[in-house]
Amino acid sequence: MSQKICIGVAGLGTVGSGLVEMLQKNHDDILRRTGREIFIKAAAVHDLSKKRRLPPETVLTDNPMSLADDPDIDIVVELMGGTTAARHLILRAIENGKSIVTANKALLAEYGQEIFSLAAKKNVAIGYEASVAGAIPVIQTLKNSLAGNHITSVLGILNGTSNYILSEMNSRGLDFPTALKAAQEMGYAEADPSLDIDGFDAAHKLTLLIRLAWGRHYPFANLSVEGIRRVDPLDIEFARQFGCRIKLIGMAEEKAGKIKAGVFPALVRSTMLLARVNGAFNAVRIEGNAVGSLFLHGLGAGSRPTASAVLGDLLALAKRNVLNSADDNTGFVDDLPLADFLSPDEAVNPWYVRATVRDTPGVLRDIAGVFAQENISFAQLIQKEKQDDRVSLVFLTHATQGRAIRSATGALERSGILLVPATCYRILENRDHEAEGA
Amino acid sequence: MSQKICIGVAGLGTVGSGLVEMLQKNHDDILRRTGREIFIKAAAVHDLSKKRRLPPETVLTDNPMSLADDPDIDIVVELMGGTTAARHLILRAIENGKSIVTANKALLAEYGQEIFSLAAKKNVAIGYEASVAGAIPVIQTLKNSLAGNHITSVLGILNGTSNYILSEMNSRGLDFPTALKAAQEMGYAEADPSLDIDGFDAAHKLTLLIRLAWGRHYPFANLSVEGIRRVDPLDIEFARQFGCRIKLIGMAEEKAGKIKAGVFPALVRSTMLLARVNGAFNAVRIEGNAVGSLFLHGLGAGSRPTASAVLGDLLALAKRNVLNSADDNTGFVDDLPLADFLSPDEAVNPWYVRATVRDTPGVLRDIAGVFAQENISFAQLIQKEKQDDRVSLVFLTHATQGRAIRSATGALERSGILLVPATCYRILENRDHEAEGA
Repeated sequence: MSQKICIGVAGLGTVGSGLVEMLQKNHDDILRRTGREIFIKAAAVHDLSKKRRLPPETVLTDNPMSLADDPDIDIVVELMGGTTAARHLILRAIENGKSIVTANKALLAEYGQEIFSLAAKKNVAIGYEASVAGAIPVIQTLKNSLAGNHITSVLGILNGTSNYILSEMNSRGLDFPTALKAAQEMGYAEADPSLDIDGFDAAHKLTLLIRLAWGRHYPFANLSVEGIRRVDPLDIEFARQFGCRIKLIGMAEEKAGKIKAGVFPALVRSTMLLARVNGAFNAVRIEGNAVGSLFLHGLGAGSRPTASAVLGDLLALAKRNVLNSADDNTGFVDDLPLADFLSPDEAVNPWYVRATVRDTPGVLRDIAGVFAQENISFAQLIQKEKQDDRVSLVFLTHATQGRAIRSATGALERSGILLVPATCYRILENRDHEAEGA
Repeated sequence: MSQKICIGVAGLGTVGSGLVEMLQKNHDDILRRTGREIFIKAAAVHDLSKKRRLPPETVLTDNPMSLADDPDIDIVVELMGGTTAARHLILRAIENGKSIVTANKALLAEYGQEIFSLAAKKNVAIGYEASVAGAIPVIQTLKNSLAGNHITSVLGILNGTSNYILSEMNSRGLDFPTALKAAQEMGYAEADPSLDIDGFDAAHKLTLLIRLAWGRHYPFANLSVEGIRRVDPLDIEFARQFGCRIKLIGMAEEKAGKIKAGVFPALVRSTMLLARVNGAFNAVRIEGNAVGSLFLHGLGAGSRPTASAVLGDLLALAKRNVLNSADDNTGFVDDLPLADFLSPDEAVNPWYVRATVRDTPGVLRDIAGVFAQENISFAQLIQKEKQDDRVSLVFLTHATQGRAIRSATGALERSGILLVPATCYRILENRDHEAEGA
């Protein structure tokens, strides 16, 4: 039990440097837990000249592929990101029988089938806890802790950048561009923020969660994705008046073998735990037929929190003493079939609809008529005082399919009643246990 | 990978029958995840004549020991509870090389050293996720997901019965005896509720969490334990005025190798996630130097939720195909040393102090003087209108050690100023990320 584990780390950015720091700082704790020394044999970086706090014996290289080919390396830790060089590195390392730990959600969402299938062939373990919701052990939970459940839904706040922006819009009354700028200044958002704010990062993670919850491959390109660029301070304010907050939600539900999934902004009742997820935090709610409702909340990104998840996988591989087993990569024994999927518009929810109309007699009657034709009934209505002859009408509907909402708002647009396209968001209702007020 | 796993189940009460139900209902999901048939070879019960929904091939016995001696049984699932027969069964099953899955927190808190040490000798795996916080995967999380952390604190609402009673007192204004009776009528509390309401059940669980977080044996008998019997509706109401709720908290903190731990009622700021844990739910907050703050919320008891955790362990053993390995029982490689422990009164918190005094001139001056001598300063004060010449004074203090509070209130009692002993509760403050209001 005292044999050394040699790892190669590709990428020493935010997460990689957190990993190096935690391996050093927590050396004694880790040794007590694993009985092993974890030794960074080599690290691959872009800039060889940059000073780094590495153990003196660690070899620096600018060629990540050399980690995959180094016979001394047991585990390759891929923290470069991206789907090109990272993909080549991981495939080659698997070919060479090395275990993999990665935080790369884009890669596993878009090339997961290829990677897991090669890993199965080569009987190689892949740890990817860090790829979804940072420090939150949601992959471990779905794969192992809840393995005896039939999972019915997975719902989460999966992107910390978007959540930070929405939190700032909510608490400080900022508009979207200002809040985005604040997030960029805080280092929460990239110079090109599209992956985060347009929902693709959350969608990558949702693809992985669907695979883990139901053992189905859901093609990333088929996922319905809507980001937060168009969230208006008006909607944040109306949501508040209805006792809700707006959050970017990744949702997947299973019914009779069919999976409804999507990423979208939604109104969340402020008595729900999900509404209390602030700033750069992430959260996931899993429902299953045995567990009931399980809610996990933690830091979704950042150097140390992501390193925490990387280390969890790394130490599990070190503890197992079996570095080459693909048994538990996907959580399922066989290759995964394609998911039978439905648009999230098949899901039944109450909806928030904001319509901007000219303030003329009969406009409310006309709108109500169109909604009635789709069998949509209203639970609440707010009319805001007009500005320049325009008026905002906000409806909360009773539970209805998204497709009925699309159909009604489409008809309203075609009829010329709307001055701008309607804003429509799902409303997530609280469960019984969350019903008690603050 | 198609070999059958034979289990023996001791106890078919609430949890055992949930296990049988879920094994049947989720048969196909389980088979996809493990590649194995899980077969209940035998079940031990008190009453052989009672009708049960068991597979036709399952043998019923009223002798649990026969499960430990049956050569066909791979895993013994102990769901009887108690620390006598269950202990004998588990020790014998370990002697015979069988893996164990148990939900028995009392047994593992009080006899954990004996059991883990025998399991290490016999190289037998023990799964006990179901023993702490029901369906919440806190054991898995501490043992594996956070293995790369130095854990700094573990804090939780670990007893659903107490939490249900406190929630009812809070939301419906009931006094303790009435809320207890309601809990008994709902089936949440036993006829003899002492284990739950006097804090011992939470203390058992806390003992296990300390072992998992720090790899130290904390003798159960040394744990400071205070239950909820003396929580007064007055305190619930004052707490609300200060923006807090009263919760039964299990807390453990580590500093410089010393562990401060205890179970006690505390005021929790209502903006904290912990304050939102209602009814029979449980929650655990773990803090570590990499993960930051992780919060897990779910059902802490009940047939299916506890079965969910039992199944998680059972299927992990089935998947591993290695039924006899003690490698990961405690989460640490070596035998666990004794914890170096401190009273939770060494911890520094703000405090809530309610004093009942005669309404005479100078009484506030006298009280303030005694607190000043202990260097305790006040943050807030409420005085309630007097009843029969008595008046309630409620102070919130700035952060101070519990021992200073004990010393001050002790001096007040000896001086005769207090008409009844003071009521003193810690106040748990929210973290930065929880600071945003509702």
